[in-house]
Amino acid sequence: MQGVPLIHTRRRLLAAAAGGLTASAAAAADAPAGKAAPKKTVGVVLYPDFEVLDVFGPVEMWGYVPDFHVIFLAQRAGPILSHQKVSVVADFSFETTPQLDIMMVPGGLGSFPEMKNPVMLDFIRAQDRRTELTTSVCSGSWLLAQAGLLEGRRATSNKLFFSTATGLPAKVEWVKHARWVVDGKYITSSGVSAGTDMALAVAARFRGRDAASGLARSLEYEWIEDPNNDPFAVA
Amino acid sequence: MQGVPLIHTRRRLLAAAAGGLTASAAAAADAPAGKAAPKKTVGVVLYPDFEVLDVFGPVEMWGYVPDFHVIFLAQRAGPILSHQKVSVVADFSFETTPQLDIMMVPGGLGSFPEMKNPVMLDFIRAQDRRTELTTSVCSGSWLLAQAGLLEGRRATSNKLFFSTATGLPAKVEWVKHARWVVDGKYITSSGVSAGTDMALAVAARFRGRDAASGLARSLEYEWIEDPNNDPFAVA
Repeated sequence: MQGVPLIHTRRRLLAAAAGGLTASAAAAADAPAGKAAPKKTVGVVLYPDFEVLDVFGPVEMWGYVPDFHVIFLAQRAGPILSHQKVSVVADFSFETTPQLDIMMVPGGLGSFPEMKNPVMLDFIRAQDRRTELTTSVCSGSWLLAQAGLLEGRRATSNKLFFSTATGLPAKVEWVKHARWVVDGKYITSSGVSAGTDMALAVAARFRGRDAASGLARSLEYEWIEDPNNDPFAVA
Repeated sequence: MQGVPLIHTRRRLLAAAAGGLTASAAAAADAPAGKAAPKKTVGVVLYPDFEVLDVFGPVEMWGYVPDFHVIFLAQRAGPILSHQKVSVVADFSFETTPQLDIMMVPGGLGSFPEMKNPVMLDFIRAQDRRTELTTSVCSGSWLLAQAGLLEGRRATSNKLFFSTATGLPAKVEWVKHARWVVDGKYITSSGVSAGTDMALAVAARFRGRDAASGLARSLEYEWIEDPNNDPFAVA
């Protein structure tokens, strides 16, 4: 699948819509004949007072990866109120969430109370046992650290409140200068917008660099492609 | 209010949360004593198959403008399914939506059918009579054009499907090289990510350039501040 342009799907869907086809018909047209590869389940772990761009930067990108099926989940299913005071819908509760292939934990003000929520930390820990990738944006890495997943690993977090990360009890090598950090299957990004760049890097793992780069261009997004290019690093 | 750092609110809210205060108490602490300025109602017009980053780039930024109250609305209230197959909640139907001070129409695949939806076009037209600003992201400007709001005006749209804009019956001067275009109270942005930059420019109108720039930095976002700096312009 390496190198298949993601943008192909975007163009095709829009062309199909213009011509009156359904999106599902267009998506079917994109699939190689006689071959329905199972999609990766990409789960975004929501909680009250999450930060919207932490979630929707990555979801914008991952929504165009043909290999991915993005779902929203939370401790309880239903509307979840963001820090920006608009709500999104968690389709799954922790109880009904299937095993995720890729887990993403966003950040936001709500991560403070969630760091002390054993139900959240147990869920993250249980899912992580069988994920292919466990990722976070912004203060989402605080939750991974509290769940014990980052022990002895390199990770990053948002730079404005970096001391909150370094003050956590977990033994993590917090990287001050990074847009995102990869350590094994753990990919932690820096604050808010950095998550979008991390998400494109994840897309590139499955579809190749050119496809991810083309996707970013089609969305008029200037991808910071180098994880070490951190314009917001702390001293 | 010019020049008051937006980031102040973000720091204060997070500090308050860390200390156990409620967000509303912290917000109250930010308000000048004895003075409760009425907030601007900023309404995002949702429809099925909207593009998530068109919506949440601006909402991320506008959520931090103390003068703004951001609401989601749609023809029918309730969950609205995005093109990325996750849902957000419209709190208001067209019937229950209050007069908006700032209207924002996002883009997405769903804008094709909405261009032919008289209920949508009537709503946009009726709201626009009394808005302070009418804005759009990506193909949202197609809907403004179809509603007749851009006649004789300069505007832009996403660059990947620019010919769709120029093919519309409305007499609009479509600008090929622009991150966003301001013409009177109409502010139209280019594709997807360009909306985030436009939104910061709107924030700067109300809080000053330094505050908007500080907000972008706190969210680790590299703001393209010049509306004429368009890395994705069409020839």
